[in-house]
Amino acid sequence: MNAVRHITLPGGFMAGAVHCGIKSTSHEDLTILACEADASAAVLTTTNQVVGAPVLWLRRILPRGYGKARGMVVNSGCSNVCTGACGLADAEAMAALTGRLLGCEAEKVLVASTGIIGHRLPMDKVRKGIAAAAARLGQSNDAAALRGIMTTDTRVKSAVVQARIGGQIITVAGIVKGSGMIAPSMATMIALITTDAAIAPEYLHKALIAAAAQSFNAITVDSDTSTSDTVALFASGAAGNKSLTPGMADYDKFQAALSEVCYELARSVVVDGEGATKLVEIAVSGARSNAEAKIAAKSVADSPLFKCAIHGGDPNWGRIAAALGKSAAKVDPGKLKIKIGGVTIFAAGTGQKFDLPEVQAHLAGKEVKVACELHLGKGRFTALTCDLSREYVTINANYHT
Amino acid sequence: MNAVRHITLPGGFMAGAVHCGIKSTSHEDLTILACEADASAAVLTTTNQVVGAPVLWLRRILPRGYGKARGMVVNSGCSNVCTGACGLADAEAMAALTGRLLGCEAEKVLVASTGIIGHRLPMDKVRKGIAAAAARLGQSNDAAALRGIMTTDTRVKSAVVQARIGGQIITVAGIVKGSGMIAPSMATMIALITTDAAIAPEYLHKALIAAAAQSFNAITVDSDTSTSDTVALFASGAAGNKSLTPGMADYDKFQAALSEVCYELARSVVVDGEGATKLVEIAVSGARSNAEAKIAAKSVADSPLFKCAIHGGDPNWGRIAAALGKSAAKVDPGKLKIKIGGVTIFAAGTGQKFDLPEVQAHLAGKEVKVACELHLGKGRFTALTCDLSREYVTINANYHT
Repeated sequence: MNAVRHITLPGGFMAGAVHCGIKSTSHEDLTILACEADASAAVLTTTNQVVGAPVLWLRRILPRGYGKARGMVVNSGCSNVCTGACGLADAEAMAALTGRLLGCEAEKVLVASTGIIGHRLPMDKVRKGIAAAAARLGQSNDAAALRGIMTTDTRVKSAVVQARIGGQIITVAGIVKGSGMIAPSMATMIALITTDAAIAPEYLHKALIAAAAQSFNAITVDSDTSTSDTVALFASGAAGNKSLTPGMADYDKFQAALSEVCYELARSVVVDGEGATKLVEIAVSGARSNAEAKIAAKSVADSPLFKCAIHGGDPNWGRIAAALGKSAAKVDPGKLKIKIGGVTIFAAGTGQKFDLPEVQAHLAGKEVKVACELHLGKGRFTALTCDLSREYVTINANYHT
Repeated sequence: MNAVRHITLPGGFMAGAVHCGIKSTSHEDLTILACEADASAAVLTTTNQVVGAPVLWLRRILPRGYGKARGMVVNSGCSNVCTGACGLADAEAMAALTGRLLGCEAEKVLVASTGIIGHRLPMDKVRKGIAAAAARLGQSNDAAALRGIMTTDTRVKSAVVQARIGGQIITVAGIVKGSGMIAPSMATMIALITTDAAIAPEYLHKALIAAAAQSFNAITVDSDTSTSDTVALFASGAAGNKSLTPGMADYDKFQAALSEVCYELARSVVVDGEGATKLVEIAVSGARSNAEAKIAAKSVADSPLFKCAIHGGDPNWGRIAAALGKSAAKVDPGKLKIKIGGVTIFAAGTGQKFDLPEVQAHLAGKEVKVACELHLGKGRFTALTCDLSREYVTINANYHT
């Protein structure tokens, strides 16, 4: 029936999803991911100071960002943000009911909600939805589970990577929702990642932080950090490998697999960015530090003028140089080199003669590569963004609270 | 013939402007402002690390930002940015030729250029233009002088304020170009301000910094700081007042007049922002410090999602709260209060019941007022921005280098 497998492909996981009536459409709006036994779990949540009740719940049950968990319940259609003490009680009730059905305490159930800000959850529907989703947990509901976390997404976004660790094949699989970093009235990016690798929570968290730095924390659609961004990673240990610890060669292999899954998921969010017609990679090298490279890359990635130029297919190095120059990262225009699609268009403080049709052909494609070489040190960072289109304005001006 | 008076209204100044062929249109593209004798002068220039040759010239002749000057030459149509050592020589040549005609050394002539980035100035035309503009210096060319500094501006922008200081009336007058902070391929905001007040360069600079903090440095159209932003202020002393020094009551009166002129000029730039249909004031109060209030206000003012919501006339407090929360300024959602048009729409951590038609009517107007009360301290700052429209994308995607 349902050939799509991702988050239950690693051993030790089941998923279930239903439409319980939070969304006005007939799409699934409630998903449960269940671990067959206690799994290592690690979460990353938004850095926004205004956070949703589910994020507060996650910080309460996993104050260090990692621990043991039995599963997660996610709803779409209502983000449970700015709903006060009642909203937090609702998140806790979701965890408690899910835990009862999974046979664990509330504190072992992660919660995420995505959708409109400022509305209470319809808890009667949510309770019925949790019971119905728990009743159909299995390994054949992955596609429904992914639909259950989606909101304005225009495409499904998942990734699976396998690696050989010792004698075992381990699998890392993930799903993500998010159509832009995003519309903060829609509580935005949520990623669920599973693996059957055996690894303690602390090291799982460490690996997730490293993977997110080059993926979820390297993307921007519109610079508007959401109130609910959540990435949750579960490791069941079903692969039977020797438990991974930093310093082992196998830990590095696991890190590589996890990083690849996170990168693919993050990339797919940008491709599905609101109004986006192109994926744009901005690779900064030669900064004084990696931190400054990130500041410089993000300054370009968030520049409305640069994003409009990409939308219009114009190799506007003036806007790239200006965006680098306005950032807090050190930039020396005389040392700066800017390339688009591998072609140098700016160097030695001024524009260069280049093959305009070649660069325009690159800009006309779906993926644009911009390289900024600062020649000041060894710092590097690559950011992913999309172009800024009239459609972005239409989506976000016509959306009403 | 020419009834408009502004920058030559204060005693001691003359202006002249011509079309010399830098622009392809027939509009004036070169303006000279001349002081009848050495005037006190103060300048503020862009904080971008990529700067135009005229900015380098200003920093050479006025390393502390103030000194004595005899005039200024400004061209539009070409910004002389990213033009290397030759570009700097061109800027110096403009100052030298203008100085010869005004009877002073090059170092007493300020230079600004605005227009496309990355092209050399057509110096033959510029030299002829300087000679022709100098030949027609007078008090009846103010309108032409303003046109001579404009690029994509859709309206003329000037301000005049008078104040009584001791027995004298002093006048402060200014003109500005800029249609957005900003298209960084058009080298953006340039303001010329004149006054007949007597005041030493050092104190003139001090007053200009204070005025700019609440005006030119409080506006944003698209967060893209230009490579050429320049504000130049000249004081001739022709009013004959006792030279102003900080601590004098008359200094405060001068400061108030100067601040009013700067505010009106800065405001007019935002009203003329690319694609703008509304002026938006974001007043943050109760921050831990004025610096944090500015960070918070600018985070809202630069949020694409907030600006789209304003464009759509939607009282989307979720986007305002999220933009405050993502900033580096301390925000406590439980203490935060958000008002639009004086009506409280968010408080105590959640959305409030409010008169929706009343708020929508306010949002439908040309000027929108947003107040964010943080209730954490006494810091306050008011930022001015505009909405984000499809027209902004069209202007900046269709513009080709």
